Amino acid sequence: MYRDEHYMRLALDVAKAGIGQTSPNPVVGAVVVNGGAVVGLGAHLKAGEPHAEVHAIRMAGEKARGATVYVTLEPCSHYGKTPPCVDLLIQAGVRRVVIATTDPNPLVAGKGIDKLRRAGIEVDVGLLKEEADELNRVFFHYIAAKTPFVTLKYACSLDGKIATATGESKWITSEAARQDVHRLRAQHDAILVGVNTVLADNPKLTVRIGEQRKNPLRIILDTNLHTPLDAHVVTDREAETWIITGSGISWEKAEAYERLGVRIIPMAAAHIHVCDVLRLLGEQRITSLFVEGGSRVHDSFLRAGAVNEVVAYIAPKLIGGREAPTPVGGLGFSRLEEVMELDIRQLEMVGPDIKVVAAVKKRGE
Amino acid sequence: MYRDEHYMRLALDVAKAGIGQTSPNPVVGAVVVNGGAVVGLGAHLKAGEPHAEVHAIRMAGEKARGATVYVTLEPCSHYGKTPPCVDLLIQAGVRRVVIATTDPNPLVAGKGIDKLRRAGIEVDVGLLKEEADELNRVFFHYIAAKTPFVTLKYACSLDGKIATATGESKWITSEAARQDVHRLRAQHDAILVGVNTVLADNPKLTVRIGEQRKNPLRIILDTNLHTPLDAHVVTDREAETWIITGSGISWEKAEAYERLGVRIIPMAAAHIHVCDVLRLLGEQRITSLFVEGGSRVHDSFLRAGAVNEVVAYIAPKLIGGREAPTPVGGLGFSRLEEVMELDIRQLEMVGPDIKVVAAVKKRGE
Repeated sequence: MYRDEHYMRLALDVAKAGIGQTSPNPVVGAVVVNGGAVVGLGAHLKAGEPHAEVHAIRMAGEKARGATVYVTLEPCSHYGKTPPCVDLLIQAGVRRVVIATTDPNPLVAGKGIDKLRRAGIEVDVGLLKEEADELNRVFFHYIAAKTPFVTLKYACSLDGKIATATGESKWITSEAARQDVHRLRAQHDAILVGVNTVLADNPKLTVRIGEQRKNPLRIILDTNLHTPLDAHVVTDREAETWIITGSGISWEKAEAYERLGVRIIPMAAAHIHVCDVLRLLGEQRITSLFVEGGSRVHDSFLRAGAVNEVVAYIAPKLIGGREAPTPVGGLGFSRLEEVMELDIRQLEMVGPDIKVVAAVKKRGE
Repeated sequence: MYRDEHYMRLALDVAKAGIGQTSPNPVVGAVVVNGGAVVGLGAHLKAGEPHAEVHAIRMAGEKARGATVYVTLEPCSHYGKTPPCVDLLIQAGVRRVVIATTDPNPLVAGKGIDKLRRAGIEVDVGLLKEEADELNRVFFHYIAAKTPFVTLKYACSLDGKIATATGESKWITSEAARQDVHRLRAQHDAILVGVNTVLADNPKLTVRIGEQRKNPLRIILDTNLHTPLDAHVVTDREAETWIITGSGISWEKAEAYERLGVRIIPMAAAHIHVCDVLRLLGEQRITSLFVEGGSRVHDSFLRAGAVNEVVAYIAPKLIGGREAPTPVGGLGFSRLEEVMELDIRQLEMVGPDIKVVAAVKKRGE
């Protein structure tokens, strides 16, 4: 049992290679062990490319026969872009499969396990399930809710200010913290901000670290289509941009943006409702959404109960001022018993700044 | 040298026994080593009681002869409430004294070292000086500035709110965090709040942990003497209370408080200036001040450049709301280049909450 845990931890570590690059697929790691030695390992790295088990079994070659396979997610049993992994495991002649967690995808959901058992393979399920579920929280949320996993991000001073009372905000946090934000952006399918953030900061919302890679989709919530036609997100063509508006905008005005390659998406109602936006994005296969403000957008997402995770960068500064804006503005929660309860998952220093990652607790948890 | 550091670290650890109970004296630890073995140790525990060196030399007895003494602060050379420690060390026949840092008190300041050397004792100065200075930062600040070391404390949500927009604030942080506040209160000579905090929360401002001990002095900043006569701080007699007011209050009104044992201290000016308050407290031998709000008082202290340290308890909650109050209100700093820069000294979890201790950086540091 101790050895099992050791190899499953290795499989989980291997799986992390795929974080932020497998959407809309989960991240998966697999380790093949025979005669007390690791004979193969693999990770799923990109949708459409081989699954973790395929890489691992290929690496093991003939040594897969009689081996134990540790895999962080139930192997697939259906034909998708690649043939079913359970067939491969059966053909390779493995003796035992240890699975951390089952696949909530209704196309798999236990069917992979059944098929392996029917083929006479010993199957154990649930080892390090919590860690495996955490690793694929984005994927699992998307499969269950059919809307993106929402991460709300902000940077503030130790006294909770995102700008001075006169509006100065560049920069509160350090270069190191801002680099970390770029890494997180790269792991998301889409980045969302409100039009006020575009008007105030004219952000690029692109990933500016390391090698060039595909930038996430940029989404602007802009009820009355006030995004300037010369804003970076409209003109730079560094990434796709969608502007979500209310129902009342004029098509003539919208065409000016469309000519610049920006997609204008009017909602059915005069006002933009967060739930409608998330449903739309889910239909468009956006599995993860990084919400970068401003404070009223954060308030709308929070009060809609639409936030899964919060990432806060806290600079070692005191700004003060009754009128200085804070990470979550708008109406907020008026009763303490209604406020959004979080669970701190990560607490660390990033350069001189504090980074906090927290999961939103389910009501009544 | 490695052994020296080992024993000086031990002396620093021993010194910590006195934290919060030696005011207006520094905390000091001493370790006596002879023949490679610790033969004595001691800490200064209370003003008027023996110094660390006295305890340590007594414990060593005859083994002090020819020994090395590690002491975290330069031994005193003057007659205060106790005779000079340097005389004791000389009489005991120690061979060598290792000192972490010199005593900034003008009555000592190098004179102790000189006297030891003149007696033929080998003296080394400066080992782990930074740690030793940090340990006595309150005492050193008080000696140099003649005003108390000021610690600003607040509790807020992860989005920087100290209450909801409707004013609910009990409780944002956990029982564990509030217990920690009581421990910090016990280490201070005085606790200060503004009258608005008294009006809003009617706090006791006492230490409610462990055994009964002397409570710190309670100080209320109350320009127009609006503290209710039935407030806890006025009636409970659990600790001494001073109310600092502007010059414009009536003596008849003040007498009602004085009759209840509360001291009313009108300042010379119509408005209360933080610098005047600190000068007054320094004259009254208050070496450390724990400022517990509200947000306007914090702003006044910050903008007066009067804060030395900040202790923030951050609850894993999002409260939101443009109108919800934040730890530092008032005017704040309007330019980012003017804001108060901090240095994070401690970052830890206290129950479910995050605790941050940060030192205020000197301008230009």
